[in-house]
Amino acid sequence: MNQTSRQIAELVRGELIGAEDVVLVSVASLRNAGPSDLSYAEAKFHGEAAQSKAGCVIVSAGSAPLANRTVILVRNPKLAFANAAAVLLRKSESDPAIHSTAVMDPSATIGAGTRVGAGCVVGRNVKIGISCVLYPRVVVYPGVEIGNNVIIHAGAVIGADGFGFVKDGEKYVPFPQVGTVIIEDDVEIGANTCIDRGSLETTVIRRGTKIDNLVQIAHNVEIGEHTVIAAQTGISGSSIVGPHSIIAGQVGIGEHARLDAHTILGGQAGVLNGKHVRGGEILWGTPARPLKEFLEQQAHLTRLPKWMKEIKRRLGLRGESDS
Amino acid sequence: MNQTSRQIAELVRGELIGAEDVVLVSVASLRNAGPSDLSYAEAKFHGEAAQSKAGCVIVSAGSAPLANRTVILVRNPKLAFANAAAVLLRKSESDPAIHSTAVMDPSATIGAGTRVGAGCVVGRNVKIGISCVLYPRVVVYPGVEIGNNVIIHAGAVIGADGFGFVKDGEKYVPFPQVGTVIIEDDVEIGANTCIDRGSLETTVIRRGTKIDNLVQIAHNVEIGEHTVIAAQTGISGSSIVGPHSIIAGQVGIGEHARLDAHTILGGQAGVLNGKHVRGGEILWGTPARPLKEFLEQQAHLTRLPKWMKEIKRRLGLRGESDS
Amino acid sequence: MNQTSRQIAELVRGELIGAEDVVLVSVASLRNAGPSDLSYAEAKFHGEAAQSKAGCVIVSAGSAPLANRTVILVRNPKLAFANAAAVLLRKSESDPAIHSTAVMDPSATIGAGTRVGAGCVVGRNVKIGISCVLYPRVVVYPGVEIGNNVIIHAGAVIGADGFGFVKDGEKYVPFPQVGTVIIEDDVEIGANTCIDRGSLETTVIRRGTKIDNLVQIAHNVEIGEHTVIAAQTGISGSSIVGPHSIIAGQVGIGEHARLDAHTILGGQAGVLNGKHVRGGEILWGTPARPLKEFLEQQAHLTRLPKWMKEIKRRLGLRGESDS
Repeated sequence: MNQTSRQIAELVRGELIGAEDVVLVSVASLRNAGPSDLSYAEAKFHGEAAQSKAGCVIVSAGSAPLANRTVILVRNPKLAFANAAAVLLRKSESDPAIHSTAVMDPSATIGAGTRVGAGCVVGRNVKIGISCVLYPRVVVYPGVEIGNNVIIHAGAVIGADGFGFVKDGEKYVPFPQVGTVIIEDDVEIGANTCIDRGSLETTVIRRGTKIDNLVQIAHNVEIGEHTVIAAQTGISGSSIVGPHSIIAGQVGIGEHARLDAHTILGGQAGVLNGKHVRGGEILWGTPARPLKEFLEQQAHLTRLPKWMKEIKRRLGLRGESDS
Repeated sequence: MNQTSRQIAELVRGELIGAEDVVLVSVASLRNAGPSDLSYAEAKFHGEAAQSKAGCVIVSAGSAPLANRTVILVRNPKLAFANAAAVLLRKSESDPAIHSTAVMDPSATIGAGTRVGAGCVVGRNVKIGISCVLYPRVVVYPGVEIGNNVIIHAGAVIGADGFGFVKDGEKYVPFPQVGTVIIEDDVEIGANTCIDRGSLETTVIRRGTKIDNLVQIAHNVEIGEHTVIAAQTGISGSSIVGPHSIIAGQVGIGEHARLDAHTILGGQAGVLNGKHVRGGEILWGTPARPLKEFLEQQAHLTRLPKWMKEIKRRLGLRGESDS
Repeated sequence: MNQTSRQIAELVRGELIGAEDVVLVSVASLRNAGPSDLSYAEAKFHGEAAQSKAGCVIVSAGSAPLANRTVILVRNPKLAFANAAAVLLRKSESDPAIHSTAVMDPSATIGAGTRVGAGCVVGRNVKIGISCVLYPRVVVYPGVEIGNNVIIHAGAVIGADGFGFVKDGEKYVPFPQVGTVIIEDDVEIGANTCIDRGSLETTVIRRGTKIDNLVQIAHNVEIGEHTVIAAQTGISGSSIVGPHSIIAGQVGIGEHARLDAHTILGGQAGVLNGKHVRGGEILWGTPARPLKEFLEQQAHLTRLPKWMKEIKRRLGLRGESDS
């Protein structure tokens, strides 16, 4: 949806300097932008902004003015740019809601403005709210409930059976996986990510949470609201991730773990089964420990070869404890 | 398939106490169950069982009786519940065997009772046995052989080319990937999991093995029978995982590794290329080492900062070995 | 495309000994080969080669001759075999270029000899070069450009939105993801791998690079030419992987990292955000450090329990620093 520079300035509550009637069609980086593009620059990039061919640039208020450029002054240029982009890039609603190659069970329902892409498969009794986008080849198993404004990228699988078995001698008997999945409003789910249905309970992704590609979320997990989970992270069965948490890439969280609100986990961290991470800590490593401890231990490990040499020299030891 | 409480009691060889003619339609947790649901309780949850609205509860033999409840007494309630659920939840065979949007090569064959879901692609000369379920959008490359009672979840890819190249100067020339994949009976494969075809040999998944979501199994790998592999684990080319093993999530196993029967690997463990893990050990860490060693080393690493401080004080060292 | 033993010998520039007119149809291992198969043997397997039923075996020049066998002598048997296999296994071009169930946007273009498999979805303004293979169910989002001789395995997703958000109070606002993806010539992409589009710039995979299954490549990443990336590795936003690098499985690379040409990363290694790996090093561990350092530290960690016991004894310490 095209916007004028004035409309964008009003939208982001910024101060417009320059032409009011620049027609903006899309967004671009300072380097790639043309006269119909909106761009943005943090204060340190105002020099580059002065060289950009962008039709309009959102810049940081309180910086030096840019001569001969249409700019919008705001406090947080990146956020204003993201909000403006959401309006500029809003899809027209003219596309058919359900692609002809999608397979929708007759009992499944979708809300106004929701689009279901090519090759999607939406099962029995699935409920999808308004203004959602299912990109091509998403599979939603029976009974799953999806809120409003949810985006699901290609190849994601929502509601497959959880991975639970009971041992019977040497064999594994499947434990029933008859729970479901609830995805609340404003959630985004990445490509080829898997969110399993609950076994007897429900797997829940609370509102506003963003999940990257190739993430695994097991049965009965609950992810709190406004949490971010980066690519290839795996969360095992029945664990709870508190709201406002930030989980980096390739993190592993064991079964029945519990992370309080505002937990931050560094990349490849591993949280043990049953662990309770309290009070919004920052953790790293496997097993995950407070960041400060992890870094101190790593620093000591790095110095260990030198120290051991010195200590052995002082004590007159000659490696007799080497294995 | 609905069952009466008496039929379930006979099925699980338990002792029925209470009404014999409760009609059971599905399964549920104690908390969620209604009068047509079967539930179960381990001994420590018998109190909760007494409050449940379940039509019938499988409970632990030898515990105190539950007043006014229809219960079935067994030695292992969870296993009995899983076995009963398998009968109660058995799908009727009325669905079409092959969904109209699945793409089956004319040379592919499937056995009785096997269902191929929407959007599946089954290649040339694929053989699939009886009573299998391919959930939507599974891809089976040409030549793959799948046994009986195999479940493959949505988005899984069976038989893609292995990742093998020969260096020719600075370029990589693909090594031929003309082997195949054999999946034996009673195997379950998770959503978006990938099992590559052999290069010149065969990738084999033996009977009863259960594989979670987003797992990678490379060319020429052999997974023994009744093994469990959790999500996001990767097994590199030509490795052998012995039967009855348990591989936790996000484990990495290098090329040409060999794990004896009954091996257990902790989450995120890493087994080196060519490593032979003997005698059904429990291992953890990268490189994977026996669990006891790993824990002892971690405990020492945790104490290392304090110890080093003390040792330096005793020896009159002042950090001259710090890097 | 069938070949005679003489044609193969000419192709690989080897010396043919034995029959010139053996008709070769396919390739196989020494053990599995029949009279119409080409096989190969490194010098140490020449004994096994003498027992093989292969119609022709490529063997190492300078070794003892094999009696009564048709062999081709070359310097690098495995490479010659791979090059010969490429010709023998070349697909005839008779298949339809675009499978009837693929969904191609009318504005998308494909070059001569390119095949688009069942259930693929190719978006608006996508350009695909000549002689490419898209296996079933690949999704290519709008605007992506793919070169010549590119192979993309089933379920891969090219061009999904990158994972970028701007915090607005407690909420996350999506940063626009309007860049694209360029895949150069001779790239291979594994099953269920995800390559995200750039946010405002372009994600680029340079020519000759080979990417395994379930790999995640984030927005704005650039992978240099002739690089190999094993399964389940993840590369975060705006990172640069230099040409001729080798990245093992389950490696994690943080945001804005930069790896010089010829970098080698061991399995499960973790490169920190913003890290510059210089000069084609071999690294391992998390945080990734030079291989020699990592191994030395691991060796010391292994010996630490024994050493601490000895040091405490010498110093008369009794665990008073234990936590």
